Amino acid sequence: MIRIFKGCIIHTPTKDKFEIYENEYLVLDGNLCDRIVSQLDQDLLDLVDKGEALVMDYTDHLIIPSFIDLHLHAPQYIQMGVGLHLPLIDWLNQYTFKIEERFADVNYAKKCYPAFVKDLYDWGSLRSVIFGTIHNESNQVLVEELDKKGLSAMVGKVNMNRFTTIGLTETVNQSLDKTKGFIDYLTEKQDTKQEAIVTPRFAPSCSYDLLDGLGQIAGERAVPVQSHLCETRREMDWVKDLFKDRLNEEKTSYSDVYHMTGLMGNTPTVMAHGVYLEDRDIKLCKENQVWIAHCPTSNNNLSSGIMPLTKYLDLGLSIGLGSDIGAGHTLAMNQVMVSAIENAKMRHTLFGDRMIMESEVFYLCTKGNGSFFEAVHPEKSIGSFEKGAMFDALIVHEEHPVSGSLTPLEQLQRFLYCGEKQSIKKRFLEGLEI
Amino acid sequence: MIRIFKGCIIHTPTKDKFEIYENEYLVLDGNLCDRIVSQLDQDLLDLVDKGEALVMDYTDHLIIPSFIDLHLHAPQYIQMGVGLHLPLIDWLNQYTFKIEERFADVNYAKKCYPAFVKDLYDWGSLRSVIFGTIHNESNQVLVEELDKKGLSAMVGKVNMNRFTTIGLTETVNQSLDKTKGFIDYLTEKQDTKQEAIVTPRFAPSCSYDLLDGLGQIAGERAVPVQSHLCETRREMDWVKDLFKDRLNEEKTSYSDVYHMTGLMGNTPTVMAHGVYLEDRDIKLCKENQVWIAHCPTSNNNLSSGIMPLTKYLDLGLSIGLGSDIGAGHTLAMNQVMVSAIENAKMRHTLFGDRMIMESEVFYLCTKGNGSFFEAVHPEKSIGSFEKGAMFDALIVHEEHPVSGSLTPLEQLQRFLYCGEKQSIKKRFLEGLEI
Repeated sequence: MIRIFKGCIIHTPTKDKFEIYENEYLVLDGNLCDRIVSQLDQDLLDLVDKGEALVMDYTDHLIIPSFIDLHLHAPQYIQMGVGLHLPLIDWLNQYTFKIEERFADVNYAKKCYPAFVKDLYDWGSLRSVIFGTIHNESNQVLVEELDKKGLSAMVGKVNMNRFTTIGLTETVNQSLDKTKGFIDYLTEKQDTKQEAIVTPRFAPSCSYDLLDGLGQIAGERAVPVQSHLCETRREMDWVKDLFKDRLNEEKTSYSDVYHMTGLMGNTPTVMAHGVYLEDRDIKLCKENQVWIAHCPTSNNNLSSGIMPLTKYLDLGLSIGLGSDIGAGHTLAMNQVMVSAIENAKMRHTLFGDRMIMESEVFYLCTKGNGSFFEAVHPEKSIGSFEKGAMFDALIVHEEHPVSGSLTPLEQLQRFLYCGEKQSIKKRFLEGLEI
Repeated sequence: MIRIFKGCIIHTPTKDKFEIYENEYLVLDGNLCDRIVSQLDQDLLDLVDKGEALVMDYTDHLIIPSFIDLHLHAPQYIQMGVGLHLPLIDWLNQYTFKIEERFADVNYAKKCYPAFVKDLYDWGSLRSVIFGTIHNESNQVLVEELDKKGLSAMVGKVNMNRFTTIGLTETVNQSLDKTKGFIDYLTEKQDTKQEAIVTPRFAPSCSYDLLDGLGQIAGERAVPVQSHLCETRREMDWVKDLFKDRLNEEKTSYSDVYHMTGLMGNTPTVMAHGVYLEDRDIKLCKENQVWIAHCPTSNNNLSSGIMPLTKYLDLGLSIGLGSDIGAGHTLAMNQVMVSAIENAKMRHTLFGDRMIMESEVFYLCTKGNGSFFEAVHPEKSIGSFEKGAMFDALIVHEEHPVSGSLTPLEQLQRFLYCGEKQSIKKRFLEGLEI
């Protein structure tokens, strides 16, 4: 059966513009996108007549690539929106670490993760790259919940052996063994769309030998890597001080710590934030094709500063977009996109950075983030409706008082700026409705 | 019948802190707040027993003052979230003016305003200060829709006699006559909670004699005034050029134009934005107790800059908060509050302004905005639950995976940062559920 989706198809094969097809037809080949046509030709009409092709009619609805969230902390769903008046260290101690400790109890995870996964699903983030906690049993609950909802994610068992609470502090060996255990669990698990990602919390939380051990695991098991990088200047100074024996005149940067330990680009790597990348960071991130997950809502809430998005894009860095809950206060990637646009506009006004285009930010959330999944699965094409791409899609309809008065692009803008969960009518991942 | 509301009562009689009463009792006297008590005393229990008092049990729900929106454009609901990638002038010409012209047709208003008013209601903004269009018939539709939903607003017939489209350009006499007509309509209308406000769009849209005529009407009819002030530097330069014959060494500012024409403080006055108030503006605004409606979402979308909120607060200016749709992209005042907090944090990080407190922003949206209504109706107290205040309230409940784990303040934070319309369970205006 050939499926043909009719509607207002919008995607961004390139950053510089939206490709828009008003009430045209997206023809699938199995679960992959094949072509977009303005009219059904006689061959397709014949197949429809014979019942061998089916037109899914979403006239006047948007058909857009589903959203991807490149950085978020699942346990922090509990604290989302809470305590953001606190300075970072107080926020971590009063909320984040206390809550993460509770995930030692698998029953706590069973209470929390269904709601988290439902919210992720409701907001249309069908793929994501997630920090769990240090606890494998609870991380497994997260995997099971993602499977139940049909979502696809990379899930990381978090590693820390210092500068956190006693309850969250592992030894190097514990941390490495449990990381291997979680990779084994996911490698062996049948019928799952989730996969493992090596997840040192950030350089300060890990001793050099823990980082080094994690780099070895990532390389040996060919597992991708996620962590944090250059979120604040204070953190950068701290890293340079903590690892001063490893840094030298040539290796001067925060990134070097990850790079020396095999955690930067040996396997596909995503680093959250990068608000203050130095020249050396930029060089290493480019050379090693590291993805930077821009998390504007988080940066705003934690007063981290404004990432120079257009500058990084023009330097050719691989940028993606993340909600970073609980420092970010919403899983809604449409709202995160708006926040990215607002922050880039603010840099334009305050510092003269070039203006952002909306298509660039949409690209980041779809094809940009998708390219990280492609790096892990080179056989897949993810985040657009180009020929051969996975049909990952949202069917969207925004109510408007004067129906029919908005162009497809205006409908998309309305959805990005004003969309609620209820605006998303259907969700498809790899061709299947979920 | 005495009504007693039980729940987690939070309000801000002063800016500096939240007053929080966890599952206590707010006792009404008619439609006014009387007192908050931790326990029902024997007298109240007896009244309950006799059926002369009724406890409305919202245990574990928040009871907070309903939101007030101090600046928004009703017709722009049509364009909310749309075209915000455009520079201001293009945005005005391609969207705002074209759409406002359509309100010459009262049937267009009948299509649009019910949806707008429903959204305002859904998000809990039970009072607001609204720009309509130049068209009295359509403005009357707006009034009727507000009445139907039980909301209370000040509604302005917009005045313009230059620098807009031909369709929206009135002569001075037309503009003044229609303004009087709209005031008459609202003065004579029975059973309405809406009232008129004199509404020159902004100084550049009005010749000096139109402004002067509007100032006279406002004074003679004792009607409040709303307009725009110092939103961008370019606009300020334009005003100073347009009115250079009226300005001099003493009267140097944008504010002077309004002040000279009786539009600044003769009657209660609210000015939107004030991003770039100069010393002279600040002096005039303070001397004339002008409210500045801070509209952070709008400022961000239009790249207007970041208003120095804490600086203005510390200077003793009267500040309120507005959604400013359609330059703002949401009517949700909880989201506007978050935007105000984020912008103030950004100024803290970038320019060293002092940090904002969440209670200050909550105060702005409730008691701060309410004080403008009080200025128009000195017999009323609006925006808190202090003794004698109107019981304007929202009953709010946020779902949370671990119910009972959040303190009342944390529940409020969760609602501000993550709340959806569905979080608001009940709405009360002047004591009555609407």
